[in-house]
Amino acid sequence: MASSSGNETGLRVGFIGLGLMGKPMAKNLLAAGNHLMVASRSRGPVDELVAAGASAATGLAELAGFAEAVITMLPTPAVTSEVLLEEGLLESMRPGALLVDMGTETPELAKRIHARAEGLGIEALDAPVSGGDTGAIAGTLSIMAGGSESAFRRAAPLFRAMGTSIRHVGGAGAGQAVKAVNQVMVAGILATVAEGLALLERAEVDVPEALAALAGGRAGSTLLEVKAAQMLEHRYQPGFRVELHLKDLGIVEDFARSVGVSLPFTALATQMLRAVEASGGAMLDHCAIIEAVRGLSRLEVSGE
Amino acid sequence: MASSSGNETGLRVGFIGLGLMGKPMAKNLLAAGNHLMVASRSRGPVDELVAAGASAATGLAELAGFAEAVITMLPTPAVTSEVLLEEGLLESMRPGALLVDMGTETPELAKRIHARAEGLGIEALDAPVSGGDTGAIAGTLSIMAGGSESAFRRAAPLFRAMGTSIRHVGGAGAGQAVKAVNQVMVAGILATVAEGLALLERAEVDVPEALAALAGGRAGSTLLEVKAAQMLEHRYQPGFRVELHLKDLGIVEDFARSVGVSLPFTALATQMLRAVEASGGAMLDHCAIIEAVRGLSRLEVSGE
Repeated sequence: MASSSGNETGLRVGFIGLGLMGKPMAKNLLAAGNHLMVASRSRGPVDELVAAGASAATGLAELAGFAEAVITMLPTPAVTSEVLLEEGLLESMRPGALLVDMGTETPELAKRIHARAEGLGIEALDAPVSGGDTGAIAGTLSIMAGGSESAFRRAAPLFRAMGTSIRHVGGAGAGQAVKAVNQVMVAGILATVAEGLALLERAEVDVPEALAALAGGRAGSTLLEVKAAQMLEHRYQPGFRVELHLKDLGIVEDFARSVGVSLPFTALATQMLRAVEASGGAMLDHCAIIEAVRGLSRLEVSGE
Repeated sequence: MASSSGNETGLRVGFIGLGLMGKPMAKNLLAAGNHLMVASRSRGPVDELVAAGASAATGLAELAGFAEAVITMLPTPAVTSEVLLEEGLLESMRPGALLVDMGTETPELAKRIHARAEGLGIEALDAPVSGGDTGAIAGTLSIMAGGSESAFRRAAPLFRAMGTSIRHVGGAGAGQAVKAVNQVMVAGILATVAEGLALLERAEVDVPEALAALAGGRAGSTLLEVKAAQMLEHRYQPGFRVELHLKDLGIVEDFARSVGVSLPFTALATQMLRAVEASGGAMLDHCAIIEAVRGLSRLEVSGE
C-alpha cells in the first residue's frame, strides 16, 4: 500500500477501468487523499471502491465533468480508442483538465490521443506501467510517461501514489515506446530464465545455491529473482496473465513494423507464450512459459 | 584488486593458464599473500607474474611437485583434458593436494577429472567463473564450485582472493552444470537486451530516462546495466569475446544434448553470435550481438 501521509494535494480524479491493475491503483490514489469518481464495466470493483470512499459515475459524462484529472486503465487499445476517441470522453472533459492514459497501446494511438486532447485544451500523458498486479497493489509500479513537462509535473503526485520508479521518458507516445521495449525485454528474459531453469532442473545441483550463484553473476535479473521459485515449483497463479502478455506483444509487433525493426527473439518468445495459451494456459501467469520449454523435450512423438 | 590484508593463509599454488582471465586471477592470488608458481603457453604473462613475485615452472612436473593446490584456467575443454588427463599432471601432483579447475567444460568431463583425481588421493573442484575480464581484474568474479565440502573449504581462501560471489553448488560437475545455465541466461538476456535497444534507438524517447525506467521495472537485469551504454554507443572492445561465448555455447549444447533438453532461445542467440563472428566480429565483445539484430533490418536485398 502506498503512503497515505496526506502530503499530496487531494485532486478530483476520474478513474476508468477497475481491472486486475486498475482497481488497486485506484485504491492507492484514494488512500493518498484524492477524491475519486470511478467507472468500470463490472459492478463488483465499483462497489468495492465506493465502500472505500469513492463515488460511482452514472456515466462517462458525469465523470468527465467532475474530474480535474481523468485516468484510463483499459484492457485493450480498441477499448481505449473507443472510450477516448469515439465515445466523446475527451470532449466532455473540463477545459484545462489532465488526461493520463495508463493502458498499453501503440505510440501511434497515443499520439492521436495527444493530438485530439491538445485541440480541446486538455493536457495529456501516455503513462503505461510495469510491475504486474503485485506492483499495483503495493504501489511500487514502474511508470513511463510521455507528454509535456507541465503535464508530467501535474500528474507526478498521482504517480507517486501508485509507483516508485516514475520517469518522464519524452514527448507524446514516448511512454508507449518505452513500454514496448520493456515488453520485448520482459518476454525475452522470462523465456531465457525459463530455458536456463529447464536445464538446471535436469542437472545434479544444489538449487538454492545455484540460483544465488546465477543471481550474483552476469545472469542476474529481476525476473530471475521474482519468478524462479514459481517456475521451479510449477506455481502459475497470475500475476501477469499469458493472454495479457500476448496482447501487449501484438502491440509491440505493430510498433516494430511501423519503425521497421525485425525482432526475432520477441517472435520466438511470443510463439512460446502462444503454445501455453493453445494448451489452455491463457489465464496463467506468464512464467508458465517454462511449460513450453519443458514440453519441447517430452513431445508425444509417434509415426511410422 | 582483491584485498591483500594478509589474513589469508599463504598457500603454495601452481597456476596454469595465464590468459585474459587467468593472468589477473593469478595476480590477485599473489596479492593475497600466496606463493605462486605459474605456467602458460605464452612467455609474456609468465614474465609479468614473475616480475610481480611468482616463480616460473620449468615444466608441469615441477609445478605439480611444488603446489599444495593446482589451479587450471585453460582456454578449451580439449586443452584442459590434455593437460589434466593425458599429460599426467594429476599423477605428478602431491598426494593430498587440491586441484581446482576453473575453466569451462561439460559436467561430464569435470566428473572424469574428479574420478581420476580421487583415485590418486587428490581432492578436486570444478569451479568455473562468471564476470568477464573486468571481474577477474577487480577480484569480483562469481565462482560456482562443484565437489566435496572438504575441498570447498580448502579452496575458499583462494576463491576469496578472486571473487565476491562464491557458491558451493553441489558435487562433482555441479559447478560446470551451473556455469552452463549461466551461459544460457547470459546469451538470452544479452540478445534480448540488444533487441530491446535496437527498438529503443528507433523510437523518439529520452534515452537515459528510458534506460532508468527499464532498469526500475521487471525488465531490469545486470546485463542491461553493464552493457546498454556500450551497445548504444557501438563500443565493442572485449570484455568477453564473441568467439569465447560461442565456445561456451558449444559446451552448453553438448550438456543439453546429454540430459535431453531442447534450448530454442539459446540456439537463436548462438546463431546471432555466429552471424557477428561470420561478419568479422569474433574478437569483439559479445554485446556486439546488437549488430546482428540491427543488421537484420538493413539487409542488402536484391534480386529480380
